[in-house]
Amino acid sequence: MTDKDHTQGWSGGPVCPVPLTNHTTVQLAHGSGGRMSAELVAKFFQPRFGNPFLDRLEDQAVLPRPAGRLAFSTDTFVVDPLFFPGGSIGDLAVNGTVNDVCMSGATPLYLSAGFVLEEGLPLATLHRILLDMEKAARQAGVAIVTGDTKVVPRGSCDKIFINTTGLGTTPDGLVLSAASLAVGDQIILSGTLADHGMAVMTCRQGLSFQASIASDTASLHGLVAAMLVAGPPRAMRDPTRGGLAATLNEFARSSGQGLVVERGLIPVRPEVAAACEILGIDPLTVANEGKLVAVVPPQIAGAMVAVMRRHPLGREAAVIGTVVGVHPGLVAVKNGLGVAQVLEMPLGEQLPRIC
Amino acid sequence: MTDKDHTQGWSGGPVCPVPLTNHTTVQLAHGSGGRMSAELVAKFFQPRFGNPFLDRLEDQAVLPRPAGRLAFSTDTFVVDPLFFPGGSIGDLAVNGTVNDVCMSGATPLYLSAGFVLEEGLPLATLHRILLDMEKAARQAGVAIVTGDTKVVPRGSCDKIFINTTGLGTTPDGLVLSAASLAVGDQIILSGTLADHGMAVMTCRQGLSFQASIASDTASLHGLVAAMLVAGPPRAMRDPTRGGLAATLNEFARSSGQGLVVERGLIPVRPEVAAACEILGIDPLTVANEGKLVAVVPPQIAGAMVAVMRRHPLGREAAVIGTVVGVHPGLVAVKNGLGVAQVLEMPLGEQLPRIC
Repeated sequence: MTDKDHTQGWSGGPVCPVPLTNHTTVQLAHGSGGRMSAELVAKFFQPRFGNPFLDRLEDQAVLPRPAGRLAFSTDTFVVDPLFFPGGSIGDLAVNGTVNDVCMSGATPLYLSAGFVLEEGLPLATLHRILLDMEKAARQAGVAIVTGDTKVVPRGSCDKIFINTTGLGTTPDGLVLSAASLAVGDQIILSGTLADHGMAVMTCRQGLSFQASIASDTASLHGLVAAMLVAGPPRAMRDPTRGGLAATLNEFARSSGQGLVVERGLIPVRPEVAAACEILGIDPLTVANEGKLVAVVPPQIAGAMVAVMRRHPLGREAAVIGTVVGVHPGLVAVKNGLGVAQVLEMPLGEQLPRIC
Repeated sequence: MTDKDHTQGWSGGPVCPVPLTNHTTVQLAHGSGGRMSAELVAKFFQPRFGNPFLDRLEDQAVLPRPAGRLAFSTDTFVVDPLFFPGGSIGDLAVNGTVNDVCMSGATPLYLSAGFVLEEGLPLATLHRILLDMEKAARQAGVAIVTGDTKVVPRGSCDKIFINTTGLGTTPDGLVLSAASLAVGDQIILSGTLADHGMAVMTCRQGLSFQASIASDTASLHGLVAAMLVAGPPRAMRDPTRGGLAATLNEFARSSGQGLVVERGLIPVRPEVAAACEILGIDPLTVANEGKLVAVVPPQIAGAMVAVMRRHPLGREAAVIGTVVGVHPGLVAVKNGLGVAQVLEMPLGEQLPRIC
């Protein structure tokens, strides 16, 4: 393959850039801080993420004075496998942190990216992941402005871990807090549950129905911006690890209120429900990567669902429950017969390395 | 051991807090986002880092509108061993990122912390590391305001990796840039070289002289604040991975200027020099974690060295070289006989997992 072939691929295609100093895999020297580190940054990271802040190549980005309070959130991504139906660790690393920033009502602006690479990782794999990060960042309207790369010897980590830390600005008047939930508030879910967790799990297990299940990984910044027009929710959260069950229990605990949801109102795709059934998993405890739960005062609930349904990521938005004046701090889930059971905070790990 | 014994140790001593649900090591369930995750946060992280931003337990910290531009920097720490003479991964994780923020002239304010824990890590080890982070953050005057914890199965990472991302504010008029170096500028080093790298390396190799060599890990925020009184440097950088050789080469490349330093003016502790000699390593290429290099206009060089020497972390500050009008983009080092050699950008990795 000639340099020209590589260069063609480089401008966005799946072909990996010219190997560094004839290596096709990550070497320990790529994390040295020396010449090979500089080459990795120049050939792999800068062409994907380049922007005036990053291109200074200083040890920090210096960013303009923001026009509001700051929202600041961090997440490390260790998902296994790296690529799964609907996305990759690269998509998750951008969307996951963007969503955590958004859930405060903030506009996400900047990301940092910290990579831990295992010696021997194919550079072509790194390239595919960086292409996904580039695309996700563009869609989310954020710039990756500062970064770090470490390389550890073979066996000291599993292929690649990515930390992203996000910064956004929150308008001065806007204060969302799970502690502010009030009796009568409506609980709104933006769409189907358990797509991400079951996509990763069925992919990992090699189950035959995997082709029809795809991760919902997406940046929720646009949906959140649309929602704020209907009025501020009391609180918003994206139900990732631990699923809806963990999020609702966090809301109940922080507010000291009781929450009731109806299972029949919670959308789950048939193929996802089937996979959950086979594996003996409750979809309410499974991780999502492109959904949000909002608790809103009753008088704006109708308008909120309406604006959400007009957005591509909120088409199946629905009120799924209510904040109630009984069983403080607990979440109840009602089945089709109207029988209520406590929805517990999940205890432990059913799906390690799901994100 | 009773609960009371644990509680006594908890308030700052080295005794580990009450084991979680009778576990003494990290379990996969501690990363689930469920009940055991919440318990880990409540018993281990909050008591060490607690502050009003973190204690909201939302997915993001919402911080007051800052009084200037932002400095934003990220670093992941994978040092091996976790504890070494003079410090630990906990100290490095705070000081390393604080220093990267400071090098822009910024005042560091906030850190995020993202942990990847290996299943089976003793909780007592995690506790010791968090105590070190708590102490280092207090000394640096920064608050750890948001965080994330992932647990990966045994063998998928080596014990613990920590990402920290830092935020600080930079006064509006202050713009430091390696691109701004001018002929005649003086190159100032704040103290002895190679202490951190050789402390980790001799500790790892079990060399007998290790006791006398200790890491220089320290937060440079106070030294930087003192230096700004003497006037703004053109640029500052902390010579970590790749050492002084990498930093000077970055300066030369960014500015297009030539740099000359004199080896005889660069302080190295005798025991560190001896260890470098035995291992065949040039101290100019070894990582430091509590030193900085500043390039300053000649008219303020004397005042700069004077203010630095009055600070505990700058007692051995000295002018070690000059920006020159020849060999653009290259760094030369002069030996005792006045003979100059090119000081190369280090190529690769001599000390993997040094930070």
